[in-house]
Amino acid sequence: MPSRYLSFRCSAPWLILLLQALLLLRSFLGFPRVSDTYSSAGSYPEFQDVNHMVIFGFGFFLMVLRRYGFSSTGFNFLLVVLGVQCSVLAEDLLVFLQGRQNEVGLESLARAFVSVTAVVISTGAVLGRANPVQLVVMTLVELIFFYVSRYINETFLEVPEHLAGVHVFLFGAYFGLALASRFPEAPPGLDKNRSTPKSELFSVLGTVFVWVFWPSFNSVLPYFKMRAVMNTYLALAVSAVAAFMLSALTSKDGKFRMAQIRSAVLAGGVTISYTAERIHQPWIAMVLGLLGSVITILGSHCVQRCFNPALKLQDTSGVHFTFGLPAVLGAVASVVLLVVEDGIDTQWNELSRLGYDAFVFIGAFCQTMSTALITGLITGLILNIKLLKAVHVSKYFDDQFYWEVSLKMISD
Amino acid sequence: MPSRYLSFRCSAPWLILLLQALLLLRSFLGFPRVSDTYSSAGSYPEFQDVNHMVIFGFGFFLMVLRRYGFSSTGFNFLLVVLGVQCSVLAEDLLVFLQGRQNEVGLESLARAFVSVTAVVISTGAVLGRANPVQLVVMTLVELIFFYVSRYINETFLEVPEHLAGVHVFLFGAYFGLALASRFPEAPPGLDKNRSTPKSELFSVLGTVFVWVFWPSFNSVLPYFKMRAVMNTYLALAVSAVAAFMLSALTSKDGKFRMAQIRSAVLAGGVTISYTAERIHQPWIAMVLGLLGSVITILGSHCVQRCFNPALKLQDTSGVHFTFGLPAVLGAVASVVLLVVEDGIDTQWNELSRLGYDAFVFIGAFCQTMSTALITGLITGLILNIKLLKAVHVSKYFDDQFYWEVSLKMISD
Amino acid sequence: MPSRYLSFRCSAPWLILLLQALLLLRSFLGFPRVSDTYSSAGSYPEFQDVNHMVIFGFGFFLMVLRRYGFSSTGFNFLLVVLGVQCSVLAEDLLVFLQGRQNEVGLESLARAFVSVTAVVISTGAVLGRANPVQLVVMTLVELIFFYVSRYINETFLEVPEHLAGVHVFLFGAYFGLALASRFPEAPPGLDKNRSTPKSELFSVLGTVFVWVFWPSFNSVLPYFKMRAVMNTYLALAVSAVAAFMLSALTSKDGKFRMAQIRSAVLAGGVTISYTAERIHQPWIAMVLGLLGSVITILGSHCVQRCFNPALKLQDTSGVHFTFGLPAVLGAVASVVLLVVEDGIDTQWNELSRLGYDAFVFIGAFCQTMSTALITGLITGLILNIKLLKAVHVSKYFDDQFYWEVSLKMISD
Repeated sequence: MPSRYLSFRCSAPWLILLLQALLLLRSFLGFPRVSDTYSSAGSYPEFQDVNHMVIFGFGFFLMVLRRYGFSSTGFNFLLVVLGVQCSVLAEDLLVFLQGRQNEVGLESLARAFVSVTAVVISTGAVLGRANPVQLVVMTLVELIFFYVSRYINETFLEVPEHLAGVHVFLFGAYFGLALASRFPEAPPGLDKNRSTPKSELFSVLGTVFVWVFWPSFNSVLPYFKMRAVMNTYLALAVSAVAAFMLSALTSKDGKFRMAQIRSAVLAGGVTISYTAERIHQPWIAMVLGLLGSVITILGSHCVQRCFNPALKLQDTSGVHFTFGLPAVLGAVASVVLLVVEDGIDTQWNELSRLGYDAFVFIGAFCQTMSTALITGLITGLILNIKLLKAVHVSKYFDDQFYWEVSLKMISD
Repeated sequence: MPSRYLSFRCSAPWLILLLQALLLLRSFLGFPRVSDTYSSAGSYPEFQDVNHMVIFGFGFFLMVLRRYGFSSTGFNFLLVVLGVQCSVLAEDLLVFLQGRQNEVGLESLARAFVSVTAVVISTGAVLGRANPVQLVVMTLVELIFFYVSRYINETFLEVPEHLAGVHVFLFGAYFGLALASRFPEAPPGLDKNRSTPKSELFSVLGTVFVWVFWPSFNSVLPYFKMRAVMNTYLALAVSAVAAFMLSALTSKDGKFRMAQIRSAVLAGGVTISYTAERIHQPWIAMVLGLLGSVITILGSHCVQRCFNPALKLQDTSGVHFTFGLPAVLGAVASVVLLVVEDGIDTQWNELSRLGYDAFVFIGAFCQTMSTALITGLITGLILNIKLLKAVHVSKYFDDQFYWEVSLKMISD
Repeated sequence: MPSRYLSFRCSAPWLILLLQALLLLRSFLGFPRVSDTYSSAGSYPEFQDVNHMVIFGFGFFLMVLRRYGFSSTGFNFLLVVLGVQCSVLAEDLLVFLQGRQNEVGLESLARAFVSVTAVVISTGAVLGRANPVQLVVMTLVELIFFYVSRYINETFLEVPEHLAGVHVFLFGAYFGLALASRFPEAPPGLDKNRSTPKSELFSVLGTVFVWVFWPSFNSVLPYFKMRAVMNTYLALAVSAVAAFMLSALTSKDGKFRMAQIRSAVLAGGVTISYTAERIHQPWIAMVLGLLGSVITILGSHCVQRCFNPALKLQDTSGVHFTFGLPAVLGAVASVVLLVVEDGIDTQWNELSRLGYDAFVFIGAFCQTMSTALITGLITGLILNIKLLKAVHVSKYFDDQFYWEVSLKMISD
């Protein structure tokens, strides 16, 4: 075991160094100039919101495990800053492949942040079970596959560019689940994967941040920003109300469950992400928020009792019902809205066009879903080869394995 | 008792469901279309600040009780998202009654957030003593009465629309106090309504958020936004300095008291809220901030020692001296400034106009105050009828009564 | 001892009162009118970010000591609000001396916040060892000296106004270090200057805030705001990645050290502050971020093992390697960039001009550095005279000395 320890210790920093050196080299060789136009100045506040939401919000949102606070926030931070740099380069490559011009500005950073969210979500599924080396490799591999999937959508299915990024929740959740299925399960007696009121409070803090900044996240890419903001806000508000209601209704003695509520208040934001800029009637946004919350709460019961045990899957922070199911619902709603809204004022000769649109969307959805599941499985297999020194299950969920924390400090 | 438990458990989610269904129905029947103009895009950052301040800031600001962290933040979240939806509808109705046009956009959401602050403040007065059912009913009733009071001010006293919202602190504080007087007192030996350094720290975190975002709150409705921001900032800065000074001066051995400081740093923002966009001389804003802090610190001594025991009133988080007294001071200062500033360059024949303005303002103030007190009392009586299953005093201030918290977790 | 206690208690509030009264008087006599133009409205979000970063971010960033949470955040708050008011007046005086016009608006407040950062950094060096009276005096004296140094730079060395503020990290760090050298050392057995995982987590929370808002800080004064934002962001991202890498590489068993990482993730922001608006190639920003992180991590080893013990210096929160060394590196990089970039496309007859520019910059750097060290030493001597009742070393790092915290609360 000690040799394993040692080699893990040694490989993590060198891997990060190698990656960072490659990124630097790439930027030296041909990184586009930094944009200094004022045109993007107007979107700076939204960019800051997204930045804050991904780094701070998700970092603390993941802080549920009682002995994993440093790692939850710290590794999330590391993966995001690494992933954003990789994303900017991948974006650069994608743009080069499509023969468009490029410039590094706030917009490309904002797009990079949206893509990195997939990594953050996947991390949640293997939280406490993957070591930093595995996480860094996962970040790299997942981003590459996400961009490949996006490239297929944009090139072969001709999905418009600003819509190609919305599959990020779907991809992140199912990639993470497929990945998590390849990690050995924590022993049932292990006490460390519980939460305490203190860790829950920090997680609530992060959740509120994610909730507050979600309208900015959903509006950072679309054209009709204000409509996207309003619809997202309404969906989030309804799903927050429904989260409290359903949590009390479904628990044994009518008490609220913080873990469920944390997931369900965010469901509205995920569900509406596909359609935020297209909805004109507020009640549709509100209904979508409500349905998102319902599917999350019901999903959390089904998934934890039936689905996960059946597949021997351990999904530490519940990304399946927090992000996966609402994203599927959102995609379905998107198709329904497309058919219903456009179907009403469409003439017969345009019906084939409508069918084509719906077909393209369903195709993009299925392609993203299957790419996520397959590549997630493959990545999971790769991450658990001996070379990457997977963590022993007895060391799961423990800060002390990665951080210098004196025992004296713990007892305080 | 068990039957009571049970019925409380059952009624909370159904009440929320009913409300949400009504809101959805209303929005389906005739909710105005979502605005997608870019005109309101400029105010998005301020809207986000107010959103953040009300949900996150006040949620953690209220987290003073050592065993009431989940409920403080969770219920605040629930009431705000529910209240904002109710407010948007009430606003809609008000606009309809006044025969103006309406559109749901960022501005109406921002106005809704300002109104909901009244609910948040009232919650502070009964923190830990009202159950969720009572709080949800209170939210609904209080918002209706607040809009009635605003409607009277706008219609009969002809207060300009953007000034009608400033009475929100006054209304919230005195409504909450009148309400709290109808709740049974916690037994003196109860240990749970203390704070711990840990809970105080979270409360400091929330307070700093409220403080930082207050200039956005005071400038979200006025026309002269930048002047409102600057005056609010100066008042807040002076009241923060004065808070530290007065806290040390008035304590026995010259030590600082965090609870007092938390209240007093915010006093400047409340005091200046009436006059933030009218003041041209920075020193006036600074003096108002200073006076706000003085009245809060002195008030906290008087109120806690004389006023509350005499009236057998229990004001859990001190909304009387944190929001009530500074709001009264702000209203008085507003009249004085009106008379002094306008009085100087007014000719004799305009004096009657000046007197009329002052009279209208005083009338609006008295009307708001008396409406708040009377409706607060009535609401307090309603909330304590048997149907709503008031909490037994021995269960006050305890998360475990509402949340699934395993005892094992507590001991960690 | 009791008499000492008493006099400290009495002097703190009166000193604050005196200062605040002077500030009020000054603002009454001739404070410029509050600006209500809309021109500055565009920069309001950035101003809010800086406000948030300095008050909240640094307040919680400093919260590392396990028994010093209230004081870390509380005193930081007090010093910032007091310092901002002093800065606005000092700015006012500076402008008057230079014969320019003035107006109090968001821009002067933003400049004041940038200057106050020097005070916040210096506070970090004597954290837990200086009482509030000493800190308030320090704030006043340091700001005066900082403005004198800036005045010399602007007037005699003709440094452009918007570049004169960038020396704030350098000044703050070395002023703080010189100051700290005059404070008696804490006894080695003292247990209170350790951190706990809980206090570290709050500190991480603050660090993330500072990190997220740093692009706003670096762009609040420059002309080319978007370029400053992008370069700062890239430098911060690389320095965050490098922080994790180097922390694992330099620790004995390859574990991460949170205290080091907290310092090093911010190093990129300090290093780039001199050149953020001038760099056109992203890779230069990224290399600077990397070097900043390297110098912080290596510096933290050297400084704590060799430099501090040799000089009998105690630097509580490590401002030397967190802000001092990266600032020196940034200044050096600034000269190198000036010479290399301009040197390439400069003809022979312009070389003297280039040499002059470099000379002026080096002159400004040396002047700021020496002013900081000398005035810091003098201030340190003044602060430790009997009149100001320095804290006894046994009372270091303890909230209970300044705050009313019942022992019962501590044990919870």
